Amino acid sequence: MSRLLIVSCDGHAGAPPAIYREYLDPAWRADYDAMLADPEAIRRRAASLIGPRIPSDDGDDERAPLTARWSPWLRLPQMDADGIAAEVIFPQPAGRAAPPFYNLFGHPFDPTRPDAAAAGCRAHNRWLADFVHDSPQPERHVGLALVGIVDDVPAAVAEIETAKRAGLGGVILRSQPLDAPGWHDPRFEPIWSVCEDLAMPIHTHGGEGLPLGDLPGSTSIFFTEVGWFAHRLFWHLLWSGVLERHPRLRLVFTEQFAGWVAPLLRQLDEQYAGTVSTMTLAEGLSMSPSAYWARQCSVGASFMSRSECEGRHAIGVPTILWGADFPHDEGTWPETSARLHATFDGVPESELRAMLGENALRVYGLDRAVLTPHAARIGPEASSFA
Amino acid sequence: MSRLLIVSCDGHAGAPPAIYREYLDPAWRADYDAMLADPEAIRRRAASLIGPRIPSDDGDDERAPLTARWSPWLRLPQMDADGIAAEVIFPQPAGRAAPPFYNLFGHPFDPTRPDAAAAGCRAHNRWLADFVHDSPQPERHVGLALVGIVDDVPAAVAEIETAKRAGLGGVILRSQPLDAPGWHDPRFEPIWSVCEDLAMPIHTHGGEGLPLGDLPGSTSIFFTEVGWFAHRLFWHLLWSGVLERHPRLRLVFTEQFAGWVAPLLRQLDEQYAGTVSTMTLAEGLSMSPSAYWARQCSVGASFMSRSECEGRHAIGVPTILWGADFPHDEGTWPETSARLHATFDGVPESELRAMLGENALRVYGLDRAVLTPHAARIGPEASSFA
Repeated sequence: MSRLLIVSCDGHAGAPPAIYREYLDPAWRADYDAMLADPEAIRRRAASLIGPRIPSDDGDDERAPLTARWSPWLRLPQMDADGIAAEVIFPQPAGRAAPPFYNLFGHPFDPTRPDAAAAGCRAHNRWLADFVHDSPQPERHVGLALVGIVDDVPAAVAEIETAKRAGLGGVILRSQPLDAPGWHDPRFEPIWSVCEDLAMPIHTHGGEGLPLGDLPGSTSIFFTEVGWFAHRLFWHLLWSGVLERHPRLRLVFTEQFAGWVAPLLRQLDEQYAGTVSTMTLAEGLSMSPSAYWARQCSVGASFMSRSECEGRHAIGVPTILWGADFPHDEGTWPETSARLHATFDGVPESELRAMLGENALRVYGLDRAVLTPHAARIGPEASSFA
Repeated sequence: MSRLLIVSCDGHAGAPPAIYREYLDPAWRADYDAMLADPEAIRRRAASLIGPRIPSDDGDDERAPLTARWSPWLRLPQMDADGIAAEVIFPQPAGRAAPPFYNLFGHPFDPTRPDAAAAGCRAHNRWLADFVHDSPQPERHVGLALVGIVDDVPAAVAEIETAKRAGLGGVILRSQPLDAPGWHDPRFEPIWSVCEDLAMPIHTHGGEGLPLGDLPGSTSIFFTEVGWFAHRLFWHLLWSGVLERHPRLRLVFTEQFAGWVAPLLRQLDEQYAGTVSTMTLAEGLSMSPSAYWARQCSVGASFMSRSECEGRHAIGVPTILWGADFPHDEGTWPETSARLHATFDGVPESELRAMLGENALRVYGLDRAVLTPHAARIGPEASSFA
């Protein structure tokens, strides 16, 4: 008997509005109440981003009781049933369980009010820290602090420090900063420093794009483009030298598929070598782009397909993190065991262990000794994948 | 003896400012003079888009005398020497030979003055029509009308009709419309209708992206992202039903490499089939995305690499258009023969003929009988590629 230690690197949790409200700074509660009282305005804002076909509000309630998203007492049995020893927790992207003043995939409800969105982040982070702290098995939850909107860099740095002290294990940024041409802007340097110093991996999660208007085709266009926008952080921090200057900074690219990694690394390496353009693009980098990827980046490949798994060597097995995407429809829950076998049967055990758990232990600094008893109780048998 | 009929589907030509000035509506000449008198403002605008490492003004002058870009009397001997029977002509993307009020890769010099940019387009199109008309061998030039900035749809339609009457053979649009969420906006429907009715293929040419600011890394980021923005037109017109409603409309994606086509078609077909998302994205399309590609789209693959050529079957040989990218440094001129052999040696003759010329005859409606005598005089020997 040798059971696998599984870490799901993609799970979602959010509180019901009545609970988020308690975690909001009191000055923002009236605004939050007003926002919630006008669901049509919430719908219009979402439609302006991705067109008319919006995921329904709390659309996954039938499969996942709302309570399972905000109570570890209900969450842990679900993890047990799925064989998951530990889980990385993102917010809910949409609906009433999304963080206050956020709307659909990390966009602020009101783009002119970054202060409201920042207040919503703080509320979510406080709530999530309590979720982890109050859990009967806190070692099984890796909560990520939503920093998201950054218009005030010192405030963002303070929020990251607060999150670390509160026991959260990483940071989520938007795909695109609110008020700068990109994350390569030097004004964000203090964020990279604090995340490196505190060992807080930085995440993007697929979900944001350019606003497409409430037009025919917008939703389909959104789904075609959305992964690409979430990848941008990599080459913005690569070419601007951030990964060179901060060699211990870690980036994780979650739920944006995995097939893009190998072709992108090939393209970037060709640009670095000067074989694509007449301009050499090295700009002070000491290594090729694929070497930075291998040293500092991971793909949160979530519910990997068989073909993504077959391409694992071109991506780099040590950089792949599996995730269940609980509780979303496209994720593996509650059929995680069957989905794991469909993707991973026949993969050598050392590679299987790496993608399903060992890589995550390293990225998130988790304690193997503490998690092993959970895995020994609930993890799937390694030999069943032979 | 059997010579190849070669059509270069990527060439650039622009007039010197003193000549463009004559083609401008008189009301705009003072503004054009003022713009030219402040080269530092031109440089600043370019730097705000792609950072400090801007291609130098007329940087290709040493290899290509300015005159070769605006006089067919000088251009035709260059085409003869390169073995090229006919050429598709884009504007110069940057420098003093770019169209008036354009700056670097199709961006307007002043984003608040779309009327100036439209005036610059009209001047370029009139000049290019005269270039073709005055040529001793007009059948060898396919001039493309720069429509570019579209803030006034009826004016754009009128410009396309004027260009067709003046003998131009296609249309160039920006990667992104100026003042709309995307080309999927129904307000552009008259443009698709007129281009379909007049058999004017629509082009994007690699070169535009989101403004990246004058920051470290911006230029490298620009080169990483620029192809993607030029591809967007395809899936915007696909998912919004434009290709379904206009089955004779043709799209050409030029100088943005070729390696992206096969993975993109696979992704879009999976989205169409509903295997990627929980939302079916078909939205009234009668065929799979790859079928629309095969029916209506081409990749202007320009100076193809050997590896791009090896991937030709996954792209679809009938959809590939070779181009020399005259007179740019990265293009094949003046070593076109050697570059053709490096890429295409060993390719079956029927596929070679398709990619180098036959596909272009079909896309641009060119007259084989008129071009064959040129090919018989200057084209490379087909057997030399065996």
